[in-house]
Amino acid sequence: MSEAPMKLVVVGAAGRMGQTLIRLIDAMDGVVLHAAIERAGSPFLGKDAGELAGLGHKDVAVTDDPLAAFLHADGVVDFTSPASTVTFAGLAAQARIVHVIGTTGCSVEDGEKIKAAARHARIVKSGNMSLGVNLLGVLAKQAAAALPASDWDIEVLEMHHKHKVDAPSGTALLLGEAAAEGRGIDLASHSVRSRDGHTGARPAGTIGFATLRGGSVIGEHSVILAGEGELVTLSHSAGDRTIFARGALRAALWARDKKPGHYSMLDVLGLSR
Amino acid sequence: MSEAPMKLVVVGAAGRMGQTLIRLIDAMDGVVLHAAIERAGSPFLGKDAGELAGLGHKDVAVTDDPLAAFLHADGVVDFTSPASTVTFAGLAAQARIVHVIGTTGCSVEDGEKIKAAARHARIVKSGNMSLGVNLLGVLAKQAAAALPASDWDIEVLEMHHKHKVDAPSGTALLLGEAAAEGRGIDLASHSVRSRDGHTGARPAGTIGFATLRGGSVIGEHSVILAGEGELVTLSHSAGDRTIFARGALRAALWARDKKPGHYSMLDVLGLSR
Amino acid sequence: MSEAPMKLVVVGAAGRMGQTLIRLIDAMDGVVLHAAIERAGSPFLGKDAGELAGLGHKDVAVTDDPLAAFLHADGVVDFTSPASTVTFAGLAAQARIVHVIGTTGCSVEDGEKIKAAARHARIVKSGNMSLGVNLLGVLAKQAAAALPASDWDIEVLEMHHKHKVDAPSGTALLLGEAAAEGRGIDLASHSVRSRDGHTGARPAGTIGFATLRGGSVIGEHSVILAGEGELVTLSHSAGDRTIFARGALRAALWARDKKPGHYSMLDVLGLSR
Amino acid sequence: MSEAPMKLVVVGAAGRMGQTLIRLIDAMDGVVLHAAIERAGSPFLGKDAGELAGLGHKDVAVTDDPLAAFLHADGVVDFTSPASTVTFAGLAAQARIVHVIGTTGCSVEDGEKIKAAARHARIVKSGNMSLGVNLLGVLAKQAAAALPASDWDIEVLEMHHKHKVDAPSGTALLLGEAAAEGRGIDLASHSVRSRDGHTGARPAGTIGFATLRGGSVIGEHSVILAGEGELVTLSHSAGDRTIFARGALRAALWARDKKPGHYSMLDVLGLSR
Repeated sequence: MSEAPMKLVVVGAAGRMGQTLIRLIDAMDGVVLHAAIERAGSPFLGKDAGELAGLGHKDVAVTDDPLAAFLHADGVVDFTSPASTVTFAGLAAQARIVHVIGTTGCSVEDGEKIKAAARHARIVKSGNMSLGVNLLGVLAKQAAAALPASDWDIEVLEMHHKHKVDAPSGTALLLGEAAAEGRGIDLASHSVRSRDGHTGARPAGTIGFATLRGGSVIGEHSVILAGEGELVTLSHSAGDRTIFARGALRAALWARDKKPGHYSMLDVLGLSR
Repeated sequence: MSEAPMKLVVVGAAGRMGQTLIRLIDAMDGVVLHAAIERAGSPFLGKDAGELAGLGHKDVAVTDDPLAAFLHADGVVDFTSPASTVTFAGLAAQARIVHVIGTTGCSVEDGEKIKAAARHARIVKSGNMSLGVNLLGVLAKQAAAALPASDWDIEVLEMHHKHKVDAPSGTALLLGEAAAEGRGIDLASHSVRSRDGHTGARPAGTIGFATLRGGSVIGEHSVILAGEGELVTLSHSAGDRTIFARGALRAALWARDKKPGHYSMLDVLGLSR
Repeated sequence: MSEAPMKLVVVGAAGRMGQTLIRLIDAMDGVVLHAAIERAGSPFLGKDAGELAGLGHKDVAVTDDPLAAFLHADGVVDFTSPASTVTFAGLAAQARIVHVIGTTGCSVEDGEKIKAAARHARIVKSGNMSLGVNLLGVLAKQAAAALPASDWDIEVLEMHHKHKVDAPSGTALLLGEAAAEGRGIDLASHSVRSRDGHTGARPAGTIGFATLRGGSVIGEHSVILAGEGELVTLSHSAGDRTIFARGALRAALWARDKKPGHYSMLDVLGLSR
Repeated sequence: MSEAPMKLVVVGAAGRMGQTLIRLIDAMDGVVLHAAIERAGSPFLGKDAGELAGLGHKDVAVTDDPLAAFLHADGVVDFTSPASTVTFAGLAAQARIVHVIGTTGCSVEDGEKIKAAARHARIVKSGNMSLGVNLLGVLAKQAAAALPASDWDIEVLEMHHKHKVDAPSGTALLLGEAAAEGRGIDLASHSVRSRDGHTGARPAGTIGFATLRGGSVIGEHSVILAGEGELVTLSHSAGDRTIFARGALRAALWARDKKPGHYSMLDVLGLSR
């Protein structure tokens, strides 16, 4: 394509995810860093975004003026906080650009403000920006719907590094939700979250979870469907933490020529219905 | 359900698959053995089908008259040979019953005769009757379509017992075909069937195969989609050889209340479009 | 070898394991069925052991006289009950033959009686007769000893069929014990048996367990050692229930030319020290 | 321990592995960067080693004088080239310090010079410095020895990123060698390096290889022992490229209080005999 590269703004540019985004934009075809935004008062204002990210001088100074940045950009990539994200969504709507949102923890109210902004902005929002995890959720839902609960038991297994403090992981629960949706059941009342001692036989129709912890594992997830004499296993393995930034950039490129609206990673994958 | 059990005829009743079907019908709810058919001249004619299968007397004598058997049956389950299957399809059409066909090796001509019979019979036909393998094919096709070939490499891995004489397995090739279809490419011209020595870097857009052999492994298959920093793996594991018979009976029950027509296991899984 | 086949007695010949043993002896080189024993009063006394096992007539009638059977045999294979096993051990000592014991649940007293018999009998006794599981235990112990606890976390994962009523499996605990021994720690006070909710970071030096249940899975076990940036996984997969009978026959053959004594499967594997 | 941290010299300090070593030494307890060496004429001479590695100023300037550096050091870590390594070994012998060698491609002559240096230096040398891979080799050898070739087939599976140009990987071959040694056979004449088309049944006693390529996978290796009804699988997964540097530092610490000599990673793991 002879199309010009997509001009992207990174917000939260000095944070870990901002830095990763800046490095990936530099390495990827079809996208270019247009501006780098930090909050007012940040010690990084005025510094060169390329140098902050270890890329050498890129002639993009960090500023605290998102609207000015958005007006001549094609999109903004945002892994910040709910309050900032709501503000950025409003500005993206004014600029009529793409807004990719990987921010987590948005309230219902935040969500409604973001949806309102989607009348003018092209918003792609997901709790997990990895293409692979989103795909796995869709496939798990279909598998759960296709294989009858009377004959097929569903289990979700995950492994993470030794520092993780909660179990099962959010992604494991998301996969369990997808399977429950495929089965047309409520997850909370059908999940077995751990097993120890005399458990009795496996209750039919439940979704079981098992959790491993150790070393520096970034994230392994499997949805196992166990039937009489056969197993179907759907797995995702995360090898590094850039996959979320990578998925966000993929989403930005996908949304570039779409109409204003509120999209998910399933739309990006062509798997929504 | 208060519905009467589905009355099934097993053809090829004295063969290994016939015996397995008879035992499974005995063990499964909702189906009952109505008749057992062998070819004219078989030494098993007149013997009790239950005793042949190690179940004790079941009061179903093996006969060589399929039409008489089909007329008062609800369905026939058939893992025989192409020529027999074509004949049985015609008789199933006369009797207007379900005909589940797991027979492999049918020619294009055979296929057309079977399709003709499907104007009156409810035919379910598949090269692999396992629910899990059929599901895996559908999921592999979708995954291959959703994850762009520029960033995601596809590999198919299989393991079978030490007696298997060909590689890759038919099911591995079927899964490769599904992935190729998802990518909109031709498998033959895009497959890398083995690697040894100086191979050079992996050619983009290819589908690779790898084969393991050993012990008594019944059949393990994985479709691996490998992206930058993440892997999606879709696997099937066969624990015993009854899964094909089991899937055939599931297909018979599914087809019971359908209109005459030519169906696949994807229809049974609710995954055809 | 021109050596005569080893003449084996199967005790508990009409039980599920007895039947499996009789079929395997029939199929395996180097062993022959010498006698088949059941308890006094069994309805199977006098029947042909081959016919009971579905092999056709083998000219070995089931009897209730073990001593007569042992006197001209080379070995006895025993998956019965503790009380019977203690009796059989005494008779094997009189006959100075091999006694392979897969019986579980023996008390300390039973164990001592069996050890006393081992002054004259060649006894091989193990709680799990699978060669693979016993090997896995040895390897897990070594791995746990070699990889320092400060950097490597140990997890044990198992999956079994939906009917299993307890968790973790006995074999998972046995593997955990092996790892704890390698680390020189007490398992009970260092194990984390399940995880759910806010668990906090993984306590250093612990051994974690996770349990999956579903379908008809016979038994999958993995010992995972997770370090910074790398994982070592040691796994066993049971494909059918004959592996215990198979291991017992392997043990009988191994013990044939050994001195009287009390051996374990580690001796059979050549891995004891 | 009240022991002073081990003073380490990094040679090849400006290379990728040198940089990784400098960062790991900074992060690890018990070791401290004493000096950083590059070849005469390197543009990095005089620069601060910490700044080169992105750690900020560490007050260790890169020099081209290894002997001066070694004299007051406790050890040197070396992933350079055979010629340099031979020189460094001689200097390490003069300084009577630890020399950890991860350099590959040394000739037999190089090896003899290194062995000569080991009369005074404490040398640890291995073709693969990962603790996990070395452990896997030892376990694979034992498993291959313990499980009889008549009943257990050995397969080696590996997966690497799409840029890798040869197959099977060096580590896969190393694991195959370990298994062959356990079996007492020659690998070259017993290996099956790939399978495609009509292969015939698996030849007994062979060791098979299978290769997967895709994405950014750093290195996955499995040794599979497949018996009748059971599988034992021994696997290693590399999550990042620091594991080699990490293993080298672990080796340095291990060797600190040993006598002069020529050691391998098996000695470090406590698994040599």
